[in-house]
Amino acid sequence: MRCFVSGCAGFIGSHLVDRLLSLGHEVAGFDNLSTGRTQFMAEALRNPRFRFAEGDLLETDATARAMADCEFVFHLAANADVRFGTEHPTRDLQQNTIATVHVLEAMRETRAKRIAFASTGSIYGEAQVFPTPENHPLPRQTSLYGASKLGAEGFIEAYCEGFGMQGYIFRFVSILGERYTHGHVFDFVGQLQEHPEFLRVLGDGKQRKSYLYVQDCLDGILAAVENSRAKVTVLNLGTDQYCEVNQSIEWITEEMNVRPELIYAGGERGWIGDNPFIFLDCSAARALGWRPKASIKEGVARTVRYLREHPELFGAREGGFLRAGGSA
Amino acid sequence: MRCFVSGCAGFIGSHLVDRLLSLGHEVAGFDNLSTGRTQFMAEALRNPRFRFAEGDLLETDATARAMADCEFVFHLAANADVRFGTEHPTRDLQQNTIATVHVLEAMRETRAKRIAFASTGSIYGEAQVFPTPENHPLPRQTSLYGASKLGAEGFIEAYCEGFGMQGYIFRFVSILGERYTHGHVFDFVGQLQEHPEFLRVLGDGKQRKSYLYVQDCLDGILAAVENSRAKVTVLNLGTDQYCEVNQSIEWITEEMNVRPELIYAGGERGWIGDNPFIFLDCSAARALGWRPKASIKEGVARTVRYLREHPELFGAREGGFLRAGGSA
Repeated sequence: MRCFVSGCAGFIGSHLVDRLLSLGHEVAGFDNLSTGRTQFMAEALRNPRFRFAEGDLLETDATARAMADCEFVFHLAANADVRFGTEHPTRDLQQNTIATVHVLEAMRETRAKRIAFASTGSIYGEAQVFPTPENHPLPRQTSLYGASKLGAEGFIEAYCEGFGMQGYIFRFVSILGERYTHGHVFDFVGQLQEHPEFLRVLGDGKQRKSYLYVQDCLDGILAAVENSRAKVTVLNLGTDQYCEVNQSIEWITEEMNVRPELIYAGGERGWIGDNPFIFLDCSAARALGWRPKASIKEGVARTVRYLREHPELFGAREGGFLRAGGSA
Repeated sequence: MRCFVSGCAGFIGSHLVDRLLSLGHEVAGFDNLSTGRTQFMAEALRNPRFRFAEGDLLETDATARAMADCEFVFHLAANADVRFGTEHPTRDLQQNTIATVHVLEAMRETRAKRIAFASTGSIYGEAQVFPTPENHPLPRQTSLYGASKLGAEGFIEAYCEGFGMQGYIFRFVSILGERYTHGHVFDFVGQLQEHPEFLRVLGDGKQRKSYLYVQDCLDGILAAVENSRAKVTVLNLGTDQYCEVNQSIEWITEEMNVRPELIYAGGERGWIGDNPFIFLDCSAARALGWRPKASIKEGVARTVRYLREHPELFGAREGGFLRAGGSA
């Protein structure tokens, strides 16, 4: 199968490319390299079944050109910065909602009919039901990120209805693992490498979050694509666990063998739109035969090990350590 | 109070302008006149408390200029064409989702803090619960129109959370009354004026729809704005009734005194994304003291009478009679 992967140089996207290539597929990767990194595609770029096009989804012609002859579209490119949404309010609209419609339009042009989309548990806002099922009551959006992804989901569903496409929408918890370059664990490791004696934590550290290891995430995506024949499949992907931010700090400091003083900013939420509790009901994905293999603790530990082996990833970090401490 | 009304030359918007002026408010109207009509503002334009700016919400500077010094924003401008969404797939994105974010950005620039938004029962897609409550399980979008409005709702909620705004989101059934210029009743009247001997009906005529008279709709909007102090208020607005399309045909033909042959296109749905049953639970709006006064039959009758007195409204109708027969 010939696959198109947007965001192919990103964290999840680059792992997906490697996986698809290892399964024997041909992959057309597309990335504007705004946050993606060429080094994550190092192995793929040596594979003759991979072709890479540097481009932006907001350029419709370039997108359709790169997508030519692809049967399946994995749309992973996004602005994944949940926390700083209000500092650049139209970025989520542009890079998540509008970019997704551009992908759908390119699919109409190139006659690609199947799409898998990386959505987010953030669309549940502050959920009222735990673990949160896919058919949760219509939630109130608390972040521009969540709003932009919910809008993108809606357009994908409407294109499936209107143009005979087939859609797979995955609502992720936070994904961890090798090549992870933003968010809470990344920021904590960065801080502790710079100043092992203290750690600044947004909120009160009691926010409860759920994480999924990136290879388990890919297993879930591929299980759904192989096993669900519905016009639109909407699936939560997470572990059956959650942990407090404080718990993840213990795992990180243990792995790094440091004993920092913890400096809490205070408050239930780390930032405006932060969700104090994320825990998704993943029984629908499990019913398709999927099961995550790594625990949250293992996911955190592998991430910390990877980050310690790759100090160069911290150089270009947006905002620096003073802004660090929490992300979805 | 100084109010901004986008879509001030449209069906609902022009009535809202008249109402706000009659209540003593100052009104800054904004409309690109793409479907709005200057004749609907005839009375308002003679009022010194009304100022009109012709402009498009996609032009951000013009929007902010027109909004200057307004405290309350009524955002009614939209692409309201549910049925032909798939013929111009990016129109809903542009005119509904992106335009709404532009309104929100103009509010940030001008420091307006309160917004009322005309959303739609179409965001429930094919609802699973009747009457459909505001907290219906997260629905699957079946139209680009619904998707674009759901996205807009999400951004309004996120701006309220992130920027301290207050939002009122109204999910309408189809609104009827004077100045109504699109949709099913409009198309039926147009057809019957041209050829009273037959009427083409999309679907099987058994689609069950709910309608609300435009003045009742305005009562609902104003009751919520006056009585709800929540950060975000989401309200269905409709009648406690529904009718079959066939029933509305009886009322229309009775009012027009014609006996056409009915030619059904067949099928449960009038078009892709048509919703065979719309019936909203409006108890939350009623709890704020609102109650619609006109029955669906009265709303239909008043609409037919108005349209017969205004044959000029049919001249510019998009698509002509062959495309007539159903709209939300």
